Amino acid sequence: MPPLKNDRFLRALKRQPVDVTPVWMMRQAGRYLPEYRATRTRATDFLTLCRTPELACEVTLQPLERFSLDAAILFSDILTIPDAMGLGLYFTEGEGPKFKHPICNSKQIDELPIPDPHEDLQYVMDAVSLIRRELDGKVPLIGFAGSPWTLATYMIEGGSTKNFSKAKGMLFEQPQAMHRLLEKLAKTVTDYLNAQIAAGAQAVMIFDTWGGILTSRDYLEFSLQYMQQIVQNLTQKHEGEQVPVILFTKDGNEWLENIANTGCDAVGLDWKLPIGMARERIGDKVALQGNMDPCILYASPERIRQEVAGILASFGSGTGHVFNLGHGIHPQIDPENVKVFIDAVHKMSKIYHKEK
Amino acid sequence: MPPLKNDRFLRALKRQPVDVTPVWMMRQAGRYLPEYRATRTRATDFLTLCRTPELACEVTLQPLERFSLDAAILFSDILTIPDAMGLGLYFTEGEGPKFKHPICNSKQIDELPIPDPHEDLQYVMDAVSLIRRELDGKVPLIGFAGSPWTLATYMIEGGSTKNFSKAKGMLFEQPQAMHRLLEKLAKTVTDYLNAQIAAGAQAVMIFDTWGGILTSRDYLEFSLQYMQQIVQNLTQKHEGEQVPVILFTKDGNEWLENIANTGCDAVGLDWKLPIGMARERIGDKVALQGNMDPCILYASPERIRQEVAGILASFGSGTGHVFNLGHGIHPQIDPENVKVFIDAVHKMSKIYHKEK
Repeated sequence: MPPLKNDRFLRALKRQPVDVTPVWMMRQAGRYLPEYRATRTRATDFLTLCRTPELACEVTLQPLERFSLDAAILFSDILTIPDAMGLGLYFTEGEGPKFKHPICNSKQIDELPIPDPHEDLQYVMDAVSLIRRELDGKVPLIGFAGSPWTLATYMIEGGSTKNFSKAKGMLFEQPQAMHRLLEKLAKTVTDYLNAQIAAGAQAVMIFDTWGGILTSRDYLEFSLQYMQQIVQNLTQKHEGEQVPVILFTKDGNEWLENIANTGCDAVGLDWKLPIGMARERIGDKVALQGNMDPCILYASPERIRQEVAGILASFGSGTGHVFNLGHGIHPQIDPENVKVFIDAVHKMSKIYHKEK
Repeated sequence: MPPLKNDRFLRALKRQPVDVTPVWMMRQAGRYLPEYRATRTRATDFLTLCRTPELACEVTLQPLERFSLDAAILFSDILTIPDAMGLGLYFTEGEGPKFKHPICNSKQIDELPIPDPHEDLQYVMDAVSLIRRELDGKVPLIGFAGSPWTLATYMIEGGSTKNFSKAKGMLFEQPQAMHRLLEKLAKTVTDYLNAQIAAGAQAVMIFDTWGGILTSRDYLEFSLQYMQQIVQNLTQKHEGEQVPVILFTKDGNEWLENIANTGCDAVGLDWKLPIGMARERIGDKVALQGNMDPCILYASPERIRQEVAGILASFGSGTGHVFNLGHGIHPQIDPENVKVFIDAVHKMSKIYHKEK
């Protein structure tokens, strides 16, 4: 693999000094980019885009051509895992993901296979290797997976949901069955992320999109416990380089201390808590990633720069901050505003990284 | 008005001793009840149900026939206010509320009227008076309104939204226009709730459904500030009785101290934070209302009782707790399970209210 030319992102995750604050965006390869929409029309459907390494590589690299981002993230979907377990993932226009065979009872859980990432998910590993080659050391590549709890909600609900009645129904009524499902998912996610690391992912992130809908008690027992299992079983070094792991629970600010105590390297933040307060609470232990409200990108360049300045000031001096949005970029955002945002982070953060 | 036979709810809000913990449910008059669905078919549409005092009264009283609830809540909708401001509220089946004339610019804001509650909203006051008469002192009646910020999101988006792009766009780009809108709404909500109190509401609740999607800075400036204005201008006593006010921001646990400092009598809690922790943080200042996960009602009677016991134990001894769900009851819930829940609160809470 070629040497890394820009290691700001990895250095910030390890809380080593950097020249400016590194920045990337969740969903940076996505529908807000006309070139993404053009590639998307060449694939028969969204899943084909994920399953074709050349196309996944193409869209992964698109935002790096436009913006001076400090990391690339694999283009894929968190639901590749339940699909590989045999649930039959499909997408209907405007309705989001669905499963042909959702989990309805504990017998199905016992029969679920643990996929070998080099069989049903080899297309993801091929995409990772190809992207690494095409990146040619420009920036590091992030691999990712959904958290066990988040994957379980989709598998039990059969798709997206507003009230989580089936998933929470199982959690409350059959907690042991839920634990067996989450254990299988934790093992599967661990294997999957380790295979991504072996294929070339230089950092990994776990997205716990739905941990934040649980009570504190249930979050710790049914979501965080399994993310911690994964963190503890991940490959820590690959080819001599540490592979940092980022945990992100949306709406998880109440549990930042618990998340930081899992052994992860960084905690992703949504936009609700000022990052300076998060740093006070846990910033001596881990790096922090976040936390601009994605809706700021609907505003004017001036307002965007003002918001960037505020978040940089809130974090303050020193390393350990990876700038990001608090959630994925919306499809309606003007790419010109993204350029304003990314450039502002680099330009305005210099003063926080001067040598003492 | 007839004397009140069951004043547990009002006593708990005032943190006076009670025999058992009072309980009611958000959306207790609603689609989970077959008798509600029957009344609903007699109205041409949902708005007619809200606008016909006899029908609104009928559905308000239905859950009290089945369950030993300690309060009734006016059957209405938070969007009656923007409708009275001329935005033209309508409901499409399965798509939620919509406005014919959403707010698109600051000129429209300046032209918005402040409705007189005794003109365009007299049907609500008529419903309140009728319900009070029909209740005949059985339990107190709660009036309610949406928070200015929550109402503004619907008025600007033109209905429900997932990403709040337009409402946040105005907040970020035209904060002064947003403040003018929120000021008008605060005045309107104040007049509206005071008219409900004059018509017979014995407590009032402000629902801030969407405050929790804001950053801390924006929540305090654009949502809580206006709820505080309302609290400070509400009629405090009516016919010699104190009229307590409850504030509820969904996903607002980060700001409990701020909410409790507005001068309100009680703070509504969603299900994420253990109520005992909320009591430690603010329970010497206000009463607490909540906080069972509504999804528990999908589980078995045994599991429901277990959850009730846990929440009662978390709050502990003494008064100041109004038991409730952390959000509205779902339409799919079996009314038999609601009975189990309500009865369990009364039965299991006795031990926490013994005289010392």
